[in-house]
Amino acid sequence: MKVSAQAPANIAFVKYWGKYNDALTLPSNSSISMNLAELHTITTIEFSEKYRDDIVEIEFFGQRLKVVTDQKKVRVTQQIDRLRKKAKVTKRARVMLINNFPAESGIGSSASAFAALTVASCAALDLHVDRKELSILTRLGGSGSATRSILDGFVEWKKGTLSKDSYATQLAPASHWDIHDVILVVSSKSKKSSSLEGHKLAKTSPYYKARLAELPRRLVLVRQAIRDKSLSKLGIELEKDALSLHFIAMTSTPPIWYLESSTIEVIKEIYTLRNQGIEAYFTMDAGPNIHIICVAKDSSTIKAYFARKPYIETIFVSGSGKGASIIEKHLF
Amino acid sequence: MKVSAQAPANIAFVKYWGKYNDALTLPSNSSISMNLAELHTITTIEFSEKYRDDIVEIEFFGQRLKVVTDQKKVRVTQQIDRLRKKAKVTKRARVMLINNFPAESGIGSSASAFAALTVASCAALDLHVDRKELSILTRLGGSGSATRSILDGFVEWKKGTLSKDSYATQLAPASHWDIHDVILVVSSKSKKSSSLEGHKLAKTSPYYKARLAELPRRLVLVRQAIRDKSLSKLGIELEKDALSLHFIAMTSTPPIWYLESSTIEVIKEIYTLRNQGIEAYFTMDAGPNIHIICVAKDSSTIKAYFARKPYIETIFVSGSGKGASIIEKHLF
Repeated sequence: MKVSAQAPANIAFVKYWGKYNDALTLPSNSSISMNLAELHTITTIEFSEKYRDDIVEIEFFGQRLKVVTDQKKVRVTQQIDRLRKKAKVTKRARVMLINNFPAESGIGSSASAFAALTVASCAALDLHVDRKELSILTRLGGSGSATRSILDGFVEWKKGTLSKDSYATQLAPASHWDIHDVILVVSSKSKKSSSLEGHKLAKTSPYYKARLAELPRRLVLVRQAIRDKSLSKLGIELEKDALSLHFIAMTSTPPIWYLESSTIEVIKEIYTLRNQGIEAYFTMDAGPNIHIICVAKDSSTIKAYFARKPYIETIFVSGSGKGASIIEKHLF
Repeated sequence: MKVSAQAPANIAFVKYWGKYNDALTLPSNSSISMNLAELHTITTIEFSEKYRDDIVEIEFFGQRLKVVTDQKKVRVTQQIDRLRKKAKVTKRARVMLINNFPAESGIGSSASAFAALTVASCAALDLHVDRKELSILTRLGGSGSATRSILDGFVEWKKGTLSKDSYATQLAPASHWDIHDVILVVSSKSKKSSSLEGHKLAKTSPYYKARLAELPRRLVLVRQAIRDKSLSKLGIELEKDALSLHFIAMTSTPPIWYLESSTIEVIKEIYTLRNQGIEAYFTMDAGPNIHIICVAKDSSTIKAYFARKPYIETIFVSGSGKGASIIEKHLF
């Protein structure tokens, strides 16, 4: 009953923001993302009589492995409980999660963590579930975007109308389109407001309905852009969607600001790059860091361009990658 | 036929953004502002046989007086033509405009300029018009917000349904409420995009309708806040309205960014000040500079707080003031 799994972070082209059902993590809109080959969480979980209580250990990029006892532990153990109940198992577990990128700064660490946790737990508990069911179980863990980290490549999470029809489907495999995400970490400090808070406050923004109203059209355009491998079509919608999420956040009551001044600097630099003929488009999740989407051949130029800037802490580059999977090597 | 006038800049609490009739400058929404006692344009205009052509001279804060021949001249002479036609006068004019604050950076220089120009021109052309008519004639000059610079104190520009009922009315005289506008100039460089462009593009934003839909409620709240002298009520709406304008601009096609990274820094500092118990609220017009609205007794503290910051170029402080008026002293 010891299993390890690896799951990717993902970058949303059309963001998930707000839920119509909190308890079941049913989103107010469908979302589309690309799984990131180079950014992942590895988890090992072991269910055993030898544990008196659940033990949750997490390692963030650049930090030491820590036993967590706070809200993070609660979220992890709630998900394990859900699966334990389904498997009719009562044994306690030890779980270790290791991220190879900074957590809680809008690079989807909860997505990769909950996808890896769910996949590893289901296997360890001998729950035989297909990908669709895995995606639903992952969603119920509370990190909605984790749902999209289950499948390979370019993924859509359908809003659905009930718990059983709100799950992720593949739009295209990772090999379909060689685009890169150049991730500029302008601040790896933990966010003051979590995405969870943002989702809850979304509906207090007077602009939230307008966001939801424009999304059906955007989803069509983004699906087409992926199908046609059209970066310019994707890019326009990508940028609008990111600004829309941040605006909903900053017009929520109380307002949430994920952006830093350096975020704005980077956005302006991206316009400059585009004027120089380099196709580069920005997006930001619920954090200050910027994801630059470009064709694979441009990513090293873009990385070099920003590496010189004083406000950049770290840069990651990743193509599209596969979804969550069981791995052989255990963390403990 | 030589007259001088002075008119104030104004800071909008509910912004004018977008028009439903370009030619007549009929706005898509009513707006509310406070005229600023300390920031003004002085203009002198002389109609005379001695001028072969219209001569327009403008001085911006910190710059030299210049004869303008570009789009600025066109806009000024179009307004003079309109009034000349009304007065059945054909004589050419010399006009000089001097601003005591930076132009074209979202501090309303076209508002004060067109208000002063219209008031001086009407008097020089011996057009006997009342305040309402003056406000309409000013509006037709193309700088809608100039309409609000005609009257004293706290002013609402009613959207109206026809040219004759879209004009400014006073909500309260300047003496009604002793609040200050602390204007932080983070960049006095001219804007890349003019407000005129922004107004035209507003309707291309998918969020524009949502903005217009929320404004009737905001207008009621802001009128009440002024009537009750409630800074906290005013402040909440003020900030939401500013963010809304900027978001409409950045989600227009093509997007317009008036914000600078320093704008974001200042906004975050304002949240800090509020946490320290200083009631201070931000607003930005179509430019990067921030207006901090506070009670008069707090403005020196706020000014001192920001004077130390490296990204601040200049700080102006102003209470509410009177509208456009004829003055005795001529500029030439």
